[in-house]
Amino acid sequence: MSAPVSRLIVEYDGTDFSGWARQPGLRTVQGELERALSVVLRREAVALTVAGRTDAGVHARGQVASYAGEPVRPDALNALLPYDVAVLECDATRPGFDARRDATSRAYAYRVLTRRTRSPYERRYALHWPRPLDRPALERCAEGLVGRHDFTAFTPTETEHVRFERDVLAARWRHDGPDALEFLIEADAFMRNMIRVLVGTMLEVAGHRRSAEDFIELLTGRPRADAGSTAPPHGLHFLGAGYDGTHVLAQKGGVQP
Amino acid sequence: MSAPVSRLIVEYDGTDFSGWARQPGLRTVQGELERALSVVLRREAVALTVAGRTDAGVHARGQVASYAGEPVRPDALNALLPYDVAVLECDATRPGFDARRDATSRAYAYRVLTRRTRSPYERRYALHWPRPLDRPALERCAEGLVGRHDFTAFTPTETEHVRFERDVLAARWRHDGPDALEFLIEADAFMRNMIRVLVGTMLEVAGHRRSAEDFIELLTGRPRADAGSTAPPHGLHFLGAGYDGTHVLAQKGGVQP
Repeated sequence: MSAPVSRLIVEYDGTDFSGWARQPGLRTVQGELERALSVVLRREAVALTVAGRTDAGVHARGQVASYAGEPVRPDALNALLPYDVAVLECDATRPGFDARRDATSRAYAYRVLTRRTRSPYERRYALHWPRPLDRPALERCAEGLVGRHDFTAFTPTETEHVRFERDVLAARWRHDGPDALEFLIEADAFMRNMIRVLVGTMLEVAGHRRSAEDFIELLTGRPRADAGSTAPPHGLHFLGAGYDGTHVLAQKGGVQP
Repeated sequence: MSAPVSRLIVEYDGTDFSGWARQPGLRTVQGELERALSVVLRREAVALTVAGRTDAGVHARGQVASYAGEPVRPDALNALLPYDVAVLECDATRPGFDARRDATSRAYAYRVLTRRTRSPYERRYALHWPRPLDRPALERCAEGLVGRHDFTAFTPTETEHVRFERDVLAARWRHDGPDALEFLIEADAFMRNMIRVLVGTMLEVAGHRRSAEDFIELLTGRPRADAGSTAPPHGLHFLGAGYDGTHVLAQKGGVQP
């Protein structure tokens, strides 16, 4: 008989975390969750795998993680977890399940506050970009993203990645109220900083410092230096992961609850 | 000729403030704004009046304040203001204007997170209330609120108020997504803690610890001890003020941008 495996759905505010991945001496989401799980499960150590290994400052609404062991009550974990991370679900799943390896897609939103003045409410969750934005140009970029492309231009040159093609299942910009735009994207997988460089480069297109055609040409394996800057992490939100081919963006909206 | 008067629209996250009103040695919204205004206007002191004098922990999307003096650029103020307060507009208005005295109505939202688990994203902005809520009972309470009533039961017994009647222009509960409810209310004016006691008492009705009829009976001038507990401040958001009879809730939605 196989060992039981459990699946967690996790929400966190990435502002005060040094990202997902456990690192000695740093406050990380994985570190906090594994510590709480080891208390509730009364085990020395619990190791989590995760669908989307987010960087420092990046948030998650529906992160998916798994561990070998029985499920526990979310309330028991949440009582031990700090204010900026909460477990929404914890369920037994099929033996052998691995949140990272088995994910067939990941979905993110990048939130941009477009009004003139900065927002105290949104300061942790949206990039403030008070410049004119050519919305149709943004949409041409998003349309060009869908499909299989070589994203070498959108990840740091010094990289551990060995394969630079990714399948983009969905990509679009949408308004969220009069003052915000969200870029929604779902792909089989993402490389380091990929969405942040995509957004930084699309904002150049939206400001007419680069054409949409130039942006789309970057998807053919051009070098990193040809793309734009890396948008800051705090606008980026992991929305969810798909398994067995389920699409996240078919079900979910954007960042706001 | 009368002296010029300017009107500010202000957004703030009340979490780290000891409320609106200036107090020696405490971090307040009024204190921060007056300090920034005195720098930009190159004056020793600037005195603000305000439409809604919010308590510690209460937020504002569209607070209205006024001062004697020329308008200044919002960006100049925002560069001097801390992360949790921003000026959205600053305009010349009619001589003699007073944001407090001239306001004919104030509108607030109280946000309640109804899902089972707490939310890192919403922790500053919504009361977490993971208990069953009788939504029709909440709506009966809101309907009963509209009109002129005596709100003695909904403000502390030790009070500076001399008149306990208020005119409620609009009151309703609405869903904001599957996990949140917002109570929206607009009245000519509010007494201290009034909305928080209204919400605390309505939540008792929604949990069947009190009837909607009992709630409505409280609006006849019953003593404070007959009403329920005071809901915490962090779910409360000042939305805006109406002048010359304009209604805020006819134009605006709730808390989310």
